[in-house]
Amino acid sequence: MSELMIESLQAALPAERFSTSEDVLASYAVDLGPVQDRWLPAAVVWAESIEDVQAVMRLADLHGVPVVCRGAGTGLSGGAHATPGSVVLSLERMKRILEIHPEDEVARVEPGVINADLNAAAARHGLMYAPDPASYRLSTIGGNIATNAGGLRCAKYGVTRESVLGLDVVLADGSLINTGRRTFKGVAGYDLTGLFVGSEGTLGVVVGATLRLRYLPTEVQTIAAFFPEVTAAAAGVLAVGKARVQPSIMELLDGHTLAQLDQDQGSDLRRRGGALLLIQTDGYGAGIEATIIRSVLSELGATMMAEVSEEALELVELRRHSRGAEIDDVFRVGEDVAVPRSQLVHYIAELERIAAERGVGLKVVAHAGDGNLHPMFWVPAAQAEKIPDLDAALDESIEIGLRLGGTITGEHGVGQYKLRWLLLEQREEVLELQRGIKELFDPKGLLNPGKALPERVEPQVS
Amino acid sequence: MSELMIESLQAALPAERFSTSEDVLASYAVDLGPVQDRWLPAAVVWAESIEDVQAVMRLADLHGVPVVCRGAGTGLSGGAHATPGSVVLSLERMKRILEIHPEDEVARVEPGVINADLNAAAARHGLMYAPDPASYRLSTIGGNIATNAGGLRCAKYGVTRESVLGLDVVLADGSLINTGRRTFKGVAGYDLTGLFVGSEGTLGVVVGATLRLRYLPTEVQTIAAFFPEVTAAAAGVLAVGKARVQPSIMELLDGHTLAQLDQDQGSDLRRRGGALLLIQTDGYGAGIEATIIRSVLSELGATMMAEVSEEALELVELRRHSRGAEIDDVFRVGEDVAVPRSQLVHYIAELERIAAERGVGLKVVAHAGDGNLHPMFWVPAAQAEKIPDLDAALDESIEIGLRLGGTITGEHGVGQYKLRWLLLEQREEVLELQRGIKELFDPKGLLNPGKALPERVEPQVS
Repeated sequence: MSELMIESLQAALPAERFSTSEDVLASYAVDLGPVQDRWLPAAVVWAESIEDVQAVMRLADLHGVPVVCRGAGTGLSGGAHATPGSVVLSLERMKRILEIHPEDEVARVEPGVINADLNAAAARHGLMYAPDPASYRLSTIGGNIATNAGGLRCAKYGVTRESVLGLDVVLADGSLINTGRRTFKGVAGYDLTGLFVGSEGTLGVVVGATLRLRYLPTEVQTIAAFFPEVTAAAAGVLAVGKARVQPSIMELLDGHTLAQLDQDQGSDLRRRGGALLLIQTDGYGAGIEATIIRSVLSELGATMMAEVSEEALELVELRRHSRGAEIDDVFRVGEDVAVPRSQLVHYIAELERIAAERGVGLKVVAHAGDGNLHPMFWVPAAQAEKIPDLDAALDESIEIGLRLGGTITGEHGVGQYKLRWLLLEQREEVLELQRGIKELFDPKGLLNPGKALPERVEPQVS
Repeated sequence: MSELMIESLQAALPAERFSTSEDVLASYAVDLGPVQDRWLPAAVVWAESIEDVQAVMRLADLHGVPVVCRGAGTGLSGGAHATPGSVVLSLERMKRILEIHPEDEVARVEPGVINADLNAAAARHGLMYAPDPASYRLSTIGGNIATNAGGLRCAKYGVTRESVLGLDVVLADGSLINTGRRTFKGVAGYDLTGLFVGSEGTLGVVVGATLRLRYLPTEVQTIAAFFPEVTAAAAGVLAVGKARVQPSIMELLDGHTLAQLDQDQGSDLRRRGGALLLIQTDGYGAGIEATIIRSVLSELGATMMAEVSEEALELVELRRHSRGAEIDDVFRVGEDVAVPRSQLVHYIAELERIAAERGVGLKVVAHAGDGNLHPMFWVPAAQAEKIPDLDAALDESIEIGLRLGGTITGEHGVGQYKLRWLLLEQREEVLELQRGIKELFDPKGLLNPGKALPERVEPQVS
């Protein structure tokens, strides 16, 4: 990055909103996604206002400097990894909840608001912000929007897109636009809001969001159902669907995950079954729905905890934070393929086959209600020579997910890490249309370059 | 349109898929929206396959001929009005339900499938396609997608966008692409599916759709609550929201609408109240939810029909088909503004003020749960001299809707009729971005020109 850009940023921003110190650069270099090439950014800026964001983008535009937006840095696909010569633009200080309107059932927030903080504020009005990624205690609404984050509750309430009514966005040239609306319905104009949601900071910088809130359920029922095998648990997911009951949460944990939890928590889950379905129903029908689900799963041979069980609730909390429980004496690679629901059983069987054939470990947790899986292949840290087998297992799991009609990413985003797989999922014409959109919004290619969309392959001269 | 295009179409298509006969052109000239300039198309083509659509688009591209796509022609904004020299491309014969997959909870359909036919087929599996515009017995899924149609049930289940997982689209040059996926969740790539939904045939021709189905509720409760005045009924909508109960349907009918129904049906609704709220709850909590709603509305002074009431169910059916009941001895103009829910009471009061000041009649029905209103201003057919007052009332109602934080169109689309109002809702920078997208997808401007987006105003030379 040019010295001129550094000097301009320094001139434009108070000292506490700007840093080039080595340790700061290092701590803002990557998110929680896999790191291939680790680059330090040239500078970190903490925007405190829309004007700050506009100032950064105007300077970036002037000096041709790439800008990588960042919320809490909890992304899992490298979408916020710094690229060479980039400015990392942190939105974490823009964390005001501007409005919660209980009658409109709408919130307006700055992008740095933590998901859990918004939910705490909404709960005081009997409302909730539905999308609840596992990172909800850490991750920001802006980051959730950038990846169109899912979570546990989206089985019933939909993903981030379904809760975003409108956005304030600073474009690549520093101009500010508003998309969408404050009303629940509206069809005026193309869906620019939807275009920004999930675009991973490559089309604009989200500096404000108008969000739809939902009713906080008065009643919640939790079911913890143990199955002898993971395929039986996956069949349970389909059986609940066949009973036409819509749970708010339907999580699947395989036996390896249970064993891991036992090791970390001193529990005895693995002894009680080879797989666990954690199901919640909510709302005024929660009781009846839970009764139906219990009956359906019981017919399939599930063993269930008592009807009101503190332990079941604790398990849901454990599942919510399962990433935090990871230990670091293994190498691991994980993904978030989603498959059509009918393929759940078959896909899990395929994952087990892949792990066995490659001689690597496997743990599977899944947002099973949505067909969205988080399988993880692993080998002990002492077996670094097996890392290529891990990668091969991962690649094969992606290919098979696609062959079963699935997608490479249900909720984590493409970021930097999954670009190579996106080429397997989407045809060149479709990628090319997206590149056209990217060029329209960001003609100089300054917004998070090298993320979300694979580079154009220039035609060979024959 | 060039003779060459006509000849090429004739050569490319069997005779029964093509017509230039005067009466056919006349019956495909307009949809159900207001007609300003009535143009006949140069030809009508009935596509029977994706290849037919591709052939038409390739020829249109070659000869520079505009193409207006059309489903059942039930649109209300002139989105399918023919434009000079255009080919009307009817998709009504592409009406195969290609697949209903009960485990995946997904349907794949051709664009000409009638909404009600899909619902009938899904119901055999305990499933439903949630979006239910009032036209659902006539309108096509393709047309619903083109306008991002809403309906009664979207209070709970969301609009068309929330039920579309993926699309097959023929682009302006005749090439075929697939967007989206078959899984419920997925964040690979920009949201092209969302971009096509609601784009009113201006970005591509939808030739296939993968749709998410929902569980057909086993229990439905219907509440018909009469209020002395329409503002009291609107307050009832907010009170139900405050009780944090989510109805599947919440429709408001004002006193004038009730009087109209009485006249058409021989009922005595108007005598029983000055406004009616029709509410349905569904699912396993329907009974408890209905009890809560009854209690809330009763506190507000509502008079309710008996708990199980055939009449209440019939009223919902009447409401569903209320457009069909219109008589033709009046001039009328109607709209579909949506406002934030808290503004419902105030907006209806403003509509009544406008009607009184302009000396015109007013009827209001509303998808009140969504804040989406269908007010209609009218004068008797004998008072043609008052038509300018009608238009002035309509314009004022739009301006006030916008001032209250609303949108010009909740579910009908901009089409041709609302272009002038879109300029009031969206700023030039936002329109310009959309024009850029339009040019990217349709560089020659052949797809439904003059719809959905106002033309660029070329800068004045000063």
